[in-house]
Amino acid sequence: MFRRVAILGLGLMGGSLGMALRERGLAHEIAGYDAAEGVAAHARQLGAITHPCGSVGEAGAGAELVVLAAPLLALRMLLAEVAPMLASDAIVTDLGSTKVEVTAWAHEILTAPDRFVGGHPMAGSERSGVKAACADLFEGCAWCLTPVASTAAHTRARVAELATRVGATLVVELEPARHDEAVAVVSHLPLVATAALVLTATGGHAWSAAGRLAAGGFRDTTRVASGDPCMARDICLTNGGPLVAILDTYIERLRAMRDDIADGRGAAIQQVFCNAKAARDEWLGG
Amino acid sequence: MFRRVAILGLGLMGGSLGMALRERGLAHEIAGYDAAEGVAAHARQLGAITHPCGSVGEAGAGAELVVLAAPLLALRMLLAEVAPMLASDAIVTDLGSTKVEVTAWAHEILTAPDRFVGGHPMAGSERSGVKAACADLFEGCAWCLTPVASTAAHTRARVAELATRVGATLVVELEPARHDEAVAVVSHLPLVATAALVLTATGGHAWSAAGRLAAGGFRDTTRVASGDPCMARDICLTNGGPLVAILDTYIERLRAMRDDIADGRGAAIQQVFCNAKAARDEWLGG
Repeated sequence: MFRRVAILGLGLMGGSLGMALRERGLAHEIAGYDAAEGVAAHARQLGAITHPCGSVGEAGAGAELVVLAAPLLALRMLLAEVAPMLASDAIVTDLGSTKVEVTAWAHEILTAPDRFVGGHPMAGSERSGVKAACADLFEGCAWCLTPVASTAAHTRARVAELATRVGATLVVELEPARHDEAVAVVSHLPLVATAALVLTATGGHAWSAAGRLAAGGFRDTTRVASGDPCMARDICLTNGGPLVAILDTYIERLRAMRDDIADGRGAAIQQVFCNAKAARDEWLGG
Repeated sequence: MFRRVAILGLGLMGGSLGMALRERGLAHEIAGYDAAEGVAAHARQLGAITHPCGSVGEAGAGAELVVLAAPLLALRMLLAEVAPMLASDAIVTDLGSTKVEVTAWAHEILTAPDRFVGGHPMAGSERSGVKAACADLFEGCAWCLTPVASTAAHTRARVAELATRVGATLVVELEPARHDEAVAVVSHLPLVATAALVLTATGGHAWSAAGRLAAGGFRDTTRVASGDPCMARDICLTNGGPLVAILDTYIERLRAMRDDIADGRGAAIQQVFCNAKAARDEWLGG
């Protein structure tokens, strides 16, 4: 499918993409770069890339496809570094969790922004780093693409093909702002809510007993709070508007439930839990 | 271990206890009663009990051990119905999620409250009803007992033995009020927080896109919101004080995170996520 792919940033996502490309025989050469010393060599040992590179330029040179897989706040710099080295027909995409800012940076920096399309595979893990990477991370996932009016049809088609070839079963196209709103709701709100939940639970005097009783419900509810704190920070910094808006709604709803509980309003409380169960079960079944 | 056990309430918990007792050969007879028509017969078909009974009295008569496994708010009535039928040496326990109220009811209603001890196996599922019951539900769980000063040592020992024989690997004794505070933090707060999360996510205009992107993180974070709404309601109604107190702390913490995000305070945001990850990882490792 590709002669040479460059992956810039070799953590969970970039590493897993490399492994998926290799395992499925989708690229002859996979050049990889990571800002942290030794990571590219480690990624080659793990089979995530074929060519560890010492610089962004070395990795990007001659690549048909460049995938930005570093933390969100590093993407602007990566774009600036790789831009002068891009082949004239190179396509650029990314794997970041928010899309408005990176799309703006791509249009500001790249000479051919029609060959950039933002991408977001809806897959992940609370584990991080190339050591957590695996070839089937994207198996069965949805992969969101965020083209804008000027994005070339060929760019969209090529990245959509990449997504399905490495395992995505659904490619969803959304405007960058719609994407960021949507993930604020189903991904970033849970991230903030569960971090707050963990700190609330572990920070009080009841924790010494409670920690011994906490079981599968607490473990699953808080799983995403064990994710990479830098990723979480970058998400908050690049998606502040939609995230604050949904947090306000969430806090308001919690406050209403709190008041129902304080007043012992059984019927109202039961209705809320019925509605939540119905909404979740419908989502799972749909 | 027991000649005859009576299980009053044949849902997920009562049904699973019956199955565990049978599979491990711990009771000759397991009498079962459920207020809903046909459930006791179904429980016998599934192998959860040996003797389906048409009344509380019929089930409780002659039992060495009576286990209250109905919804919390039904326990007072069950205690009143079973009390006159209890054998003089019968031990009574329950499987409910809160312990202050049921302990008070037992002391008010039973003629020998020294033979009652509250119990709470820290195991469960978002599925409910006897159809979801399984013999290994308690495998590896913690089982909390909530004796009070007047509880007989024999009662505690016998119910602790029951717990370990059906799979519990840890028996924790707490005062009823300490138990309720602890589970408010690690079990009831997650229940309320995730119900609010589901309703916030699914209730807004972004859901049509967001629902297609929601993945494993959203699924796991919200799992407990698919549980039985009546159980959740009874928990809120019998543990209102501790639950409201911890909800207030949670809302305050969310508000602080919301303000950090609104103001783009990267270092503070990262610190919060670092602390949450460290606390959760320590709990998992401990």
